[in-house]
Amino acid sequence: VYLVGAGPGAADLITLRGWALIATADIAVVDALADPALWDGLPIEIVPAGKRAGDHGMAQDDIHAALIALARAGKAVVRLKGGDPFVLGRGSEEALALAAAGVPCVVVPGVSAAFAAPALAGIPLTHRGVADAFTVLSAHLADGGPALPPFDPRATLVVLMGVANRALWLPALAGLGYPADLPVAWIEWAGRPHQRVLRTTVAHAAVAADAFALKSPAVAVVGAVAGLPPCGVEAP
Amino acid sequence: VYLVGAGPGAADLITLRGWALIATADIAVVDALADPALWDGLPIEIVPAGKRAGDHGMAQDDIHAALIALARAGKAVVRLKGGDPFVLGRGSEEALALAAAGVPCVVVPGVSAAFAAPALAGIPLTHRGVADAFTVLSAHLADGGPALPPFDPRATLVVLMGVANRALWLPALAGLGYPADLPVAWIEWAGRPHQRVLRTTVAHAAVAADAFALKSPAVAVVGAVAGLPPCGVEAP
Repeated sequence: VYLVGAGPGAADLITLRGWALIATADIAVVDALADPALWDGLPIEIVPAGKRAGDHGMAQDDIHAALIALARAGKAVVRLKGGDPFVLGRGSEEALALAAAGVPCVVVPGVSAAFAAPALAGIPLTHRGVADAFTVLSAHLADGGPALPPFDPRATLVVLMGVANRALWLPALAGLGYPADLPVAWIEWAGRPHQRVLRTTVAHAAVAADAFALKSPAVAVVGAVAGLPPCGVEAP
Repeated sequence: VYLVGAGPGAADLITLRGWALIATADIAVVDALADPALWDGLPIEIVPAGKRAGDHGMAQDDIHAALIALARAGKAVVRLKGGDPFVLGRGSEEALALAAAGVPCVVVPGVSAAFAAPALAGIPLTHRGVADAFTVLSAHLADGGPALPPFDPRATLVVLMGVANRALWLPALAGLGYPADLPVAWIEWAGRPHQRVLRTTVAHAAVAADAFALKSPAVAVVGAVAGLPPCGVEAP
C-alpha cells in the first residue's frame, strides 16, 4: 500500500512520484478533498473514503480493513490523502494498522495545505525580520480545543480546519497574549479557481468569517506575515 | 519569474506543476540542495546560486538582481529552491524584490523537508493521542539562537539546519521544560540513498550527533512521535 499525499487541492500539485503510483495502481482509496482530475482517464478503480461536513464517510477502522483486504487480494493499492499523509491526517494510524497486519506500506510525502494555502495566497510563513518559526495545528479535535501556543512575535500560527471550529480557538487567543490588532488571513479553497483570501485581525477574524460566509476547507494564518504585501501573486 | 519549490531532495518529489515549468523555462537559478536529475537532459541554462557550508554562493541581493535582469531580458525564469519557497528559505524576500521591480512572480509550493524528512524516516509529525500540533524553526539564524517554544507534550518540534548549530538550541531545551528522556530523531540526507536516521533523546542528542558524525542537511524531530514504531517504511 502506498500512502500518497495528493497535495493541497489543484491536481498538478501532486509529486511526480505520487502521480506515477496512481498511474500504475489497480485501485485507489481517496479522500474527499482530492481532485478527481488526478485519476481522470486512468484505468484505476476509485473507492471514496472521504469525510466532509455532514457526511462522515468510511470509519477509520473500515478504511484500515479495506486497505488490508485489498493488499492481501494482491492489488496494487494507493491510499490518496489530501495534503501530506503525515500532517494532521491520520496517515500514521493507517501506516501502523498496515504494519500490524504485516502489509508493507510506503509513504510518499505531499504538499501540505498548511503552508501551500498561505503560499498560494501570497503569504510566507517565515520572513526575515518578521517571523522565523511557525506552528501548525488543527482546530478540529475530538477532545476539545486545540493546544494553542502562547504568543511569540517571531512565530506564525497556522490553523487548519479553523472556520467551522472558530469558536473553539479564536476567543482563546487574547488570553494567550495575541494582540487584538495582529494580522489574520483566512484562505478558503486555496489554489482552486474559487479561492478567496480575507485579510483581517485577531479582533475581527470571527466577524469577518461570518460576514463573508467562509466555509471549509479554509486555513487561517495568524501573525505579522499576514500583514506583509502579497508575495508572488497579484494582489486580489 | 516562477519561484518553484524543488521538494526535499529526491528529484521525483517535485510537483507536476514545478516540473512542467522547468521543462519549458529558458533558465533556472538553482539552490545547492536541488537534485541535478531535475534538469538532466533538458534544454535549460542553469545558474547555481546555492549556499553550502564553507561556500556562501551568491549574495541574496545578487540573486535578486540576477532574477530581475533575466526577466527584463525576456527570459522565462525559474527560481528553483530546495523544499518549499516560503518555508524558511528567503523566497518571500525574492518575491517582494521582484514585486518592487515590477517583475511578475508566481509561487509554486513544494514539499518541505520540515515534514517530508520525518515522513521518509517513518515519523509522523502528528499522531492521534500523541501529538496534534507541530512547530518548525531553523537553528541557522543570523541574530543568534532560534525562538524555541516552551515544551508542550502534545506538540512536536522540528528543527531545520540543527546539526551544525546544535550548540545553539539543544542545551536550551531543558530550561524550557523538555524532559531529558523525550525522544529525538535526527534524519540526515532524507530521501536520498545515503539517508541515515538516528533515534535518541534530548539528553543524548548532541553526543549521538557527534558519535555518528552527522552532517548537514539534517532535520531533528523532538517529541513523543519520534518514539513511535516506524510508520510506513521498513525499520532501518
